[in-house]
Amino acid sequence: MSSIKEVAKMANVSIATVSHVINGTRFVADDTKARVKQAMTALKYYPNSVAQSLRSKKSKLVALIVPNIWNPFFSELTYYIEDELNSEQYKLLLCNSERKPEKEIYYLDMLRQDKVAGILGITYNEIDNSVSDEIPMISIDRHFSKKITCVTSDNFEGGRMALRELVKAGVKKPAFIGNVTAVFSETMKRRAGFVHEAELMGIDYVVYERPDPIRDYETYYKDFFELHSNVDGVFAITDMLAAQYIERASKLGIHVPKDVKVIGYDGIQDHHYFHPVLSTIRQPVEEMARTAVRLLFRKIEGHTLEQETYQLPVIFRQGETT
Amino acid sequence: MSSIKEVAKMANVSIATVSHVINGTRFVADDTKARVKQAMTALKYYPNSVAQSLRSKKSKLVALIVPNIWNPFFSELTYYIEDELNSEQYKLLLCNSERKPEKEIYYLDMLRQDKVAGILGITYNEIDNSVSDEIPMISIDRHFSKKITCVTSDNFEGGRMALRELVKAGVKKPAFIGNVTAVFSETMKRRAGFVHEAELMGIDYVVYERPDPIRDYETYYKDFFELHSNVDGVFAITDMLAAQYIERASKLGIHVPKDVKVIGYDGIQDHHYFHPVLSTIRQPVEEMARTAVRLLFRKIEGHTLEQETYQLPVIFRQGETT
Repeated sequence: MSSIKEVAKMANVSIATVSHVINGTRFVADDTKARVKQAMTALKYYPNSVAQSLRSKKSKLVALIVPNIWNPFFSELTYYIEDELNSEQYKLLLCNSERKPEKEIYYLDMLRQDKVAGILGITYNEIDNSVSDEIPMISIDRHFSKKITCVTSDNFEGGRMALRELVKAGVKKPAFIGNVTAVFSETMKRRAGFVHEAELMGIDYVVYERPDPIRDYETYYKDFFELHSNVDGVFAITDMLAAQYIERASKLGIHVPKDVKVIGYDGIQDHHYFHPVLSTIRQPVEEMARTAVRLLFRKIEGHTLEQETYQLPVIFRQGETT
Repeated sequence: MSSIKEVAKMANVSIATVSHVINGTRFVADDTKARVKQAMTALKYYPNSVAQSLRSKKSKLVALIVPNIWNPFFSELTYYIEDELNSEQYKLLLCNSERKPEKEIYYLDMLRQDKVAGILGITYNEIDNSVSDEIPMISIDRHFSKKITCVTSDNFEGGRMALRELVKAGVKKPAFIGNVTAVFSETMKRRAGFVHEAELMGIDYVVYERPDPIRDYETYYKDFFELHSNVDGVFAITDMLAAQYIERASKLGIHVPKDVKVIGYDGIQDHHYFHPVLSTIRQPVEEMARTAVRLLFRKIEGHTLEQETYQLPVIFRQGETT
């Protein structure tokens, strides 16, 4: 089958114009329309039926629930989600949940009323009772319920990788620092991978956690430095926590990476203008975003997905902190 | 008049439930509904009429067009816009325009078809021909057309402030570095304020600009360093450009702030974990966001706004680069 590109070339119009003719999404002059249709016939071009079926659905809205769009990890994710939705002429409804269950539930109501076609979500709340496993919803990064398909990075492998990289950098006593959510979260696997690998390698390690959300970072770090003054390596559950640790440590005369090596998780820095450039386990944000949207489209079309969790591989990105 | 809070208290329900009863936005059990209505009658509570008129409009969607949500300035702005819209139960449609006119025009079409109630936009394109001055649209930061009300920071005063702060820090030969958009943009006033103040104070200065968007930063900086090796102060049109300059300069052995003092514009850094912490002209992002939404609501209600531009004051925030 020929492509939309060839049709556009033959009709001497842009790909967007061909798309508008096919979907009736915008006014196209009659002679242009005729030229596009001639080219489609000549080239035996048939618009993708899956895409067509998606386009014929009533609502062209997908809601994205993020805790806070201001966070660079979420804004990067949102950027790619909007781009992928746009390829099928879907529009993005953005909701900052602030971790409030009522805001999340509000969007589930919209979904029930067919005001949105589907939901992509990073939720922190136990909303199991409100959802059935049939609704078109994909969770990203945080797996809050077994009923909802989740797209995530390989958190366990990321944790193992972080431990190995710390040891490789000469660390003898590594610590994991993080926070524990009340409900199960995929991010907990970062610690699990770290611990697993340390046990495997016979390395003495520390796990330091406090309940999420952490409101008093002063106490959080004070306790850590008091309890674990002998660590020479830190794997922080997020880049932000890693950056925070480094700042606090430097005030106590602990220098990174000289005294303590540090690895974060996420990969929020997309340029090298601000320092330190963190050594980090980089999530494949673009791939996670596009995969989540593609899976959501399949659910909107009524398909059942094969897997409960789609895990995408992470990489270690060397920065200035190991 | 009594408040919704009192109604909620008397009916022994949450404020959200009272709101749902008033607006029919969610299912509420009959006996609860009756209790709320009794309380409303007893307390002589009448829902705010402006809010009601907003709520009775067909579309509860507002589109926000940003060049790229990934940019921290836009993600902060989006955060507050969503929050302000949410206070009137409006939902945010997010569009990354990537500065492409066709994406911007697509949303204007949606507006014409009443699929969205209004548009908040940061556009970079000349779309004058597509818009009338009656449409509910508010431009933020970039004023691209006299027909559209614009909410902006006081760019001119920001430019003056930057020049004064550089001089105060001992700079003898300050440079403004930036880019020039094809159409008039409010951001050009940053340069104008800088130049105005330098002339006023009798300071020798440099203006270095290249057409927007800048694709080849290698050449941009190479030319700047060749042409203007004698500057000892830089006012960059954005924080990102300031951070970039500092990185490039350090590779040439030019140290900030020792050799050159640097001031940016925006105030994108909301914490001190990454360095350098830029000295910058901070835009009142939250106030800009909330003002833009409030003005848009007035336009949606059919009011004519008094001003063409709403300028909000900026402040100088001392960082590590001056």
